[in-house]
Amino acid sequence: MKFYDCATAPSPRRVRMFIAEKNLDIPVVEVDLGSLEQHSQAFATLNPHRTVPVLELDDGSILTSSHAICRYLEEVYPQQPLMGRNPEERGHIADLEWRIEQEGFMAVGESFRNRARSFKNNAVTGKHEHAQIPELVERGRVRASQFMQWLDNHLAEREFIAGDYFSVADITAFITLDFAKWIKLEAPKECKNLHRWFSEVAKRPSASL
Amino acid sequence: MKFYDCATAPSPRRVRMFIAEKNLDIPVVEVDLGSLEQHSQAFATLNPHRTVPVLELDDGSILTSSHAICRYLEEVYPQQPLMGRNPEERGHIADLEWRIEQEGFMAVGESFRNRARSFKNNAVTGKHEHAQIPELVERGRVRASQFMQWLDNHLAEREFIAGDYFSVADITAFITLDFAKWIKLEAPKECKNLHRWFSEVAKRPSASL
Repeated sequence: MKFYDCATAPSPRRVRMFIAEKNLDIPVVEVDLGSLEQHSQAFATLNPHRTVPVLELDDGSILTSSHAICRYLEEVYPQQPLMGRNPEERGHIADLEWRIEQEGFMAVGESFRNRARSFKNNAVTGKHEHAQIPELVERGRVRASQFMQWLDNHLAEREFIAGDYFSVADITAFITLDFAKWIKLEAPKECKNLHRWFSEVAKRPSASL
Repeated sequence: MKFYDCATAPSPRRVRMFIAEKNLDIPVVEVDLGSLEQHSQAFATLNPHRTVPVLELDDGSILTSSHAICRYLEEVYPQQPLMGRNPEERGHIADLEWRIEQEGFMAVGESFRNRARSFKNNAVTGKHEHAQIPELVERGRVRASQFMQWLDNHLAEREFIAGDYFSVADITAFITLDFAKWIKLEAPKECKNLHRWFSEVAKRPSASL
């Protein structure tokens, strides 16, 4: 197995933190998005979608989404489960993570990519060129703020997002909040549950990777 | 268990087709999105996100995304698996379904919701109001076309999306292509693999539900 990572990008960081929480030892190949290495012939041959993260399996096939990579690793390395300990918990964590990705992570990404100069014609992840749409900068920001309010409320009576148990939902939400700093968005001080939870997760060794 | 459905909407149709393929018998409650029943107090109390589908579990908790509902049903009713028969297949199907949802289903939805008069201030699924952004009508359409080209290519040497085996990835992609008719988008005639596959899936009894 081989994990294609990029130290500066939020999507592969989800996998990196997941691997660290499970104490797995998987060889890493660093891909330099800063110099557009994802568009090099070598990388595009490996992953025609030209995105990271990538997990290359032992049979040479690849997985190209954080979601599927974590799901696969959870199944082949069931120790220290991060996706739930019974069917109900697995259902709820899948539901929460889906929402965190769609309403949090994607909203921040939308705001960022439709503004940053270096993404002028790459406003959508992937190999196709798409021009930026300036209105999405603000819409993404508003959606990300609404997401933070929801999460603060959700955490009012829970230690972690899934309850008493640290899960992949915490990983995705934690990285989303860090990613939001790229658009200079922080949760309001009144979001006390969110700040309490964020500080706790930030203490984990996996959070600084 | 109870499944909150809406006969006219594409998202709950993913769950409906999944349930039919697995031959499950789950009580259904129809929610009338046409009369905005999702914003009624009764429904908003059940699901504060005010979206369908919803699966209400026997303990009264709910799942609110097609993704998590199907994952949960697959686990508690493992007969006729639709998400893979071994870890590698499950990883690849999760990866494919994620891509089909993000690049196909969401792109069509973006194009549709940012244009349709009835979604004037509801351009994003959920309880928050967001004004339409006209540029997304075309961007969503272009992205959906690129998705169809990718899928046509993917199907060149495969009977079904995951290979020789009908899976949830076929369900999501089939419904995405049907949904694309709402924005008057059809795959070009040259996409022969896509049309061959679509006709095959359309013959399944679950496809007409």
